[in-house]
Amino acid sequence: MLPFARVSIIGLGLIGSSIAHAVRATMPTVALTGHDADPGVRARAREIGFVDDVADTPGAAVTDADLVILCVPVGAMGDVGAAIAADLPADAIVSDVGSSKGSVIEALAATLPGVTVIPAHPVAGTENSGPDAGFATLFRHRWCIVTPPDGAPEAAVARVIDFWRRLGAEVETMDPKHHDLVLAITSHLPHLIAYTIVGTASDLEEVTRSEVIKYSAGGFRDFTRIAASDPTMWRDVFLSNKGAVLEMLQRFSEDLTALQRAIRWGDGDALFDLFTRTRAVRRSIIEQGQDDGRPDFGRSHE
Amino acid sequence: MLPFARVSIIGLGLIGSSIAHAVRATMPTVALTGHDADPGVRARAREIGFVDDVADTPGAAVTDADLVILCVPVGAMGDVGAAIAADLPADAIVSDVGSSKGSVIEALAATLPGVTVIPAHPVAGTENSGPDAGFATLFRHRWCIVTPPDGAPEAAVARVIDFWRRLGAEVETMDPKHHDLVLAITSHLPHLIAYTIVGTASDLEEVTRSEVIKYSAGGFRDFTRIAASDPTMWRDVFLSNKGAVLEMLQRFSEDLTALQRAIRWGDGDALFDLFTRTRAVRRSIIEQGQDDGRPDFGRSHE
Repeated sequence: MLPFARVSIIGLGLIGSSIAHAVRATMPTVALTGHDADPGVRARAREIGFVDDVADTPGAAVTDADLVILCVPVGAMGDVGAAIAADLPADAIVSDVGSSKGSVIEALAATLPGVTVIPAHPVAGTENSGPDAGFATLFRHRWCIVTPPDGAPEAAVARVIDFWRRLGAEVETMDPKHHDLVLAITSHLPHLIAYTIVGTASDLEEVTRSEVIKYSAGGFRDFTRIAASDPTMWRDVFLSNKGAVLEMLQRFSEDLTALQRAIRWGDGDALFDLFTRTRAVRRSIIEQGQDDGRPDFGRSHE
Repeated sequence: MLPFARVSIIGLGLIGSSIAHAVRATMPTVALTGHDADPGVRARAREIGFVDDVADTPGAAVTDADLVILCVPVGAMGDVGAAIAADLPADAIVSDVGSSKGSVIEALAATLPGVTVIPAHPVAGTENSGPDAGFATLFRHRWCIVTPPDGAPEAAVARVIDFWRRLGAEVETMDPKHHDLVLAITSHLPHLIAYTIVGTASDLEEVTRSEVIKYSAGGFRDFTRIAASDPTMWRDVFLSNKGAVLEMLQRFSEDLTALQRAIRWGDGDALFDLFTRTRAVRRSIIEQGQDDGRPDFGRSHE
């Protein structure tokens, strides 16, 4: 018994198109409708054909749905909620895939009063964006965090969880506020730092852009991957999870200042102690299947 | 005509053992001798057999060499120079693979007066260390920066360049001071930042270690790879390239503070502008063959 029979996906970028591919692969009888605000993306989605029908308006995409998943930048959730409100079937469940949850819950509660909203966040992605970037296995063995608001119907939560498990994800439920703190350190701060250092490297006068690129295998290139992520999505994440991001950034800056001081004063022991401690974290991530254990991410050296 | 006939490798970790494997693969007639300060590493090197002979002292490893490559942490270069000085053949060339060059040139000039020293830095590596981590193709299509000191004999420089090209590397010569500045931004600062954020994440009270690991696919896991690099090597790099690292760190901190301010004041345009600019850097790195263009570093999603 499938959790949903008619799924509507609003936003057909990397995550929206990946959900569509994954539904096709794991629940082929589900009817899939999609919409994207960009006419070019709608045209491309029709060509690729990962949903049965691409609607020209968000309202038309949801009229028949029992699950609507909003896959748009978190700053656009409220507007999309308002745009589908009138056409949403009474028993439909609305979910989303936003990287911050507190602000999304607030925006959807305001624009979709009385609707059952069960937010979720699949912690998965690549640096690519758009309808061509999606693939069916993106969520396999990745975590999806479901953050039910207070008083959410248990049956609805269970159906959303079932849905994500069928796409291959491991599911955890979490308080939205705690989610925003956890993701601030495991996702938002890493992106902010990566964007910053790539910007710093681009702006140097003494070191040319060409040198930065040529010698990037010394470590820098790792940062450029996540600094190539979708700019709109990430702008919205930082603005919507401001409190938690600033808190984590403050802690990071303090720790960086301590290391700076250790370098300035030649305190090799402080450096060595930290560098030894951080190795263990990597080991745990590989042991728990959250990264590829092959050296250098398994990059080809041929 | 091979550039060298008898190569001695002091330090049999990731880089030393990779050089040995690569010499075997590309110049099989070269006689290879090795030494490591750690008896356990010497024993393991004998078992693997990537050099013809493992000597028990650095002096014994160099008596017959026409090229000696020091593959030890940069803080140990001076001591190793002193340890081989008496046994070094008069016409031998000494090179190294250290990640900072100014301090190495100084240390070797002091302990090996009158010796032809041609420092080099292959910008290649993985997060793994030790004699089992090496492989023959590590240097393929990676850059090796040769930093000849003032007055270095041109013929000696040419032989070292020829050697690295045969191992598969692209070679560039550079002023040592400029090398240290370039690598401070493309390698040293990225490592420092990665070590810092992994430390920050490990020390939180509100977010557990287990949560950090579970949700690391949001971006954090990328940083844990380089934060798993060899602690001794990296301690020495930061202490030996102090000036350039502190300079780059200062610029990074200023840029991070500007972003922090943009987040606090909700300046979405400033964030969007930076995030758009950084995408181009990634594209150049891939176009120039310095990273794998497959999404998510080509990680498996099966």
